[in-house]
Amino acid sequence: MLREILHNLMSTHPIDPTLQQAFGLWKDAFLRRDLASLMATYAPDAVMYDVKPPFQIRGLDNIRAVWEEAFSCFPPGITYSAIDEKIESSGDLAVMHRVQRFDGAPAGHPMENLHIRLTVTLRREHGRWLVTHEHVSLPFNPETGIVVGTP
Amino acid sequence: MLREILHNLMSTHPIDPTLQQAFGLWKDAFLRRDLASLMATYAPDAVMYDVKPPFQIRGLDNIRAVWEEAFSCFPPGITYSAIDEKIESSGDLAVMHRVQRFDGAPAGHPMENLHIRLTVTLRREHGRWLVTHEHVSLPFNPETGIVVGTP
Repeated sequence: MLREILHNLMSTHPIDPTLQQAFGLWKDAFLRRDLASLMATYAPDAVMYDVKPPFQIRGLDNIRAVWEEAFSCFPPGITYSAIDEKIESSGDLAVMHRVQRFDGAPAGHPMENLHIRLTVTLRREHGRWLVTHEHVSLPFNPETGIVVGTP
Repeated sequence: MLREILHNLMSTHPIDPTLQQAFGLWKDAFLRRDLASLMATYAPDAVMYDVKPPFQIRGLDNIRAVWEEAFSCFPPGITYSAIDEKIESSGDLAVMHRVQRFDGAPAGHPMENLHIRLTVTLRREHGRWLVTHEHVSLPFNPETGIVVGTP
């Protein structure tokens, strides 16, 4: 544990402001359910691993369809909190991972207290950071095959 | 689709041989179920999102315990094939993602024809690539909450 803490302290460095901005754009678009702005954060060759089948979703048109459906299912006022978020970057590549808790869903809604694991890769192209890969998931109980939505 | 193909062609460049070697070490250790060699590929601050709870597994001791249990459940002779694997790298950071199919499980075994989605982040430290983050998952059917193991 001490080794881990020391290592994290040593590797801490300020995140590139343009990278911070890219994450900010993504979050803003998510909260406003602004599909066009959200899609503008993806690279043309982006590949998504969503919580639901299919196994992989390739390209902007298919990713847009996933978000369109997701936005239609979200209850009003949904937001989220990041838990144990980590961003690593070098050169023109960055990776963020975190546990994400959805907040603001009404009691009894499937998203009430729902947590996901999220890993996002970004690549800088002509000065802009774009999402090239996104992996969202829940763990599952191997005895039952049923996913677990709360840590 | 043409846009995506052109983009992939343009961004294709040879993968750093030391990075290829790191993936090779990981695969060899996996196939030999060599826990010590496998663990030597992880950074001290590695964070794993496994198919099973908990939501996140932090640090080498906890990741080792996950692999120890996984190896004990694997049927003899299990191996895997990579589907649509992509490796991106820049500076001292690399990310690989792929759909992975397990091969060689006997008929009726839970791993028969099992597919997973896998995203792995590596960071180069003192010339060695080490895994800092690993995200493994199955998608699930939102109607039933049950995971789907085959595309």
